[in-house]
Amino acid sequence: MNWTEIDENAKKWTREAGERIRTSFSKELMIHTKSSPDDLVTNIDQETEQFFIERIRKTYPEHQILGEEGFGDELDKLDGTVWIIDPIDGTMNFVHQQRNFAISVAVYEYGVGKIGLIYDVVHDELYHAKVGEGAYLNDTKLPQLEEVAVEKAVIGLNATWITENKRIDPTILAPLVRKVRGTRSYGSAALEMAYVATGRIDAYITLRLSPWDFAAGLILVNELGGKVTTLHGEPLNMLGQNSVFVSKPGLHEVISKDYLYKLKK
Amino acid sequence: MNWTEIDENAKKWTREAGERIRTSFSKELMIHTKSSPDDLVTNIDQETEQFFIERIRKTYPEHQILGEEGFGDELDKLDGTVWIIDPIDGTMNFVHQQRNFAISVAVYEYGVGKIGLIYDVVHDELYHAKVGEGAYLNDTKLPQLEEVAVEKAVIGLNATWITENKRIDPTILAPLVRKVRGTRSYGSAALEMAYVATGRIDAYITLRLSPWDFAAGLILVNELGGKVTTLHGEPLNMLGQNSVFVSKPGLHEVISKDYLYKLKK
Repeated sequence: MNWTEIDENAKKWTREAGERIRTSFSKELMIHTKSSPDDLVTNIDQETEQFFIERIRKTYPEHQILGEEGFGDELDKLDGTVWIIDPIDGTMNFVHQQRNFAISVAVYEYGVGKIGLIYDVVHDELYHAKVGEGAYLNDTKLPQLEEVAVEKAVIGLNATWITENKRIDPTILAPLVRKVRGTRSYGSAALEMAYVATGRIDAYITLRLSPWDFAAGLILVNELGGKVTTLHGEPLNMLGQNSVFVSKPGLHEVISKDYLYKLKK
Repeated sequence: MNWTEIDENAKKWTREAGERIRTSFSKELMIHTKSSPDDLVTNIDQETEQFFIERIRKTYPEHQILGEEGFGDELDKLDGTVWIIDPIDGTMNFVHQQRNFAISVAVYEYGVGKIGLIYDVVHDELYHAKVGEGAYLNDTKLPQLEEVAVEKAVIGLNATWITENKRIDPTILAPLVRKVRGTRSYGSAALEMAYVATGRIDAYITLRLSPWDFAAGLILVNELGGKVTTLHGEPLNMLGQNSVFVSKPGLHEVISKDYLYKLKK
């Protein structure tokens, strides 16, 4: 397996897909809803996924593809080489803002992350990691993540999770909101994981992500010494939905011990 | 009064100050805390305010200056021409992220907003308005804001305000969080007001801002037909702290009527 070539192709196709998305801003968008009125999808999400699938199928016919928009394969296990793709992570931002969304592309081999790319299309910022070779923002190598005290931490956490909701008792995370230096919410899981990778935020907590939302971010954050688990501290399920807790080292243990212990199993 | 010249100088100084801030990224930052451990200030905040004050005093010795870092004048009324300056709005982001902060500069005449500038330094995006002449992002004229239904709205709202806190009963805004399409939190009031001005978010709600945080944003949003008031629907006090509710037209009335009516006077 030529991982250098796969990595180069993944980056090339991601940048090309980003250029196509930037060009699309001047055209009319077709917006549909999926599972709920707030679960948006556009023709650009779909066309971008198809753009990747065509290239992967042609170049690597033996690889499998797991994509948000469903044009890839239906997988019940991560055998062989699998591309996990979110053509536009943060579709709501894409529709409302034309910014703060990303392309997320990861390549896994038998369930082990090998290559992770998160591309902030509008700002032309490519966060990328090839396992064991460090993580980069464009050409700049990112430093390993350092520990931080919870009271000096800024965390990515949406207000939904401390409001009455279907997935978590809102009183579990509320004390954490009061303890930390600040909270932010950007509306793209991939970008929030890239934000943890670059140290712009210290942790990111959310309750319901699919593999294409976190597959690339997990590789990036792990490569830099950060920790990515469910809120229960378990490894993420690469074929289902998960709660996700991404954090700098040390901080992960403190938040788990002092706040998340109240979670029901 | 030559408002065209004042506007040109304000823009020129703002871009120059931004260039100085960008240059500062490679130097060591001196970080202090002010009123609380989370209320940060750096030498760059202070130097940037002094940069503006020197130029304004020299060119317009008769003008007064209200600045976050306190190097300007102490004012008990807004007589004459007053510059209201936040050299770095979003200092926590400046320190933690080196992005998502802005310079905010406004010029008022006897309490009436004339010129508003918000400069996203890292992305080189200048949001600017001269009253009665429209609002712009760099050279692009921004369209007037349109109405939007609350269930399709994305609002800027920090998790703090639906957690137990000193300023608002957290049960007042929680139902709004559940009703809207999504919430975001960027950590810079000036940028969040620029986000309302560009339609990237539909409203922004926060509980404690000083005049330098909102003076420029108020001019921008008003110029585009949006509404800026306290959470009680009253005009903002330009010499004290305020709760702030910035919104597209129509949405302001709906949120006031359906959610904010529970506020104590």
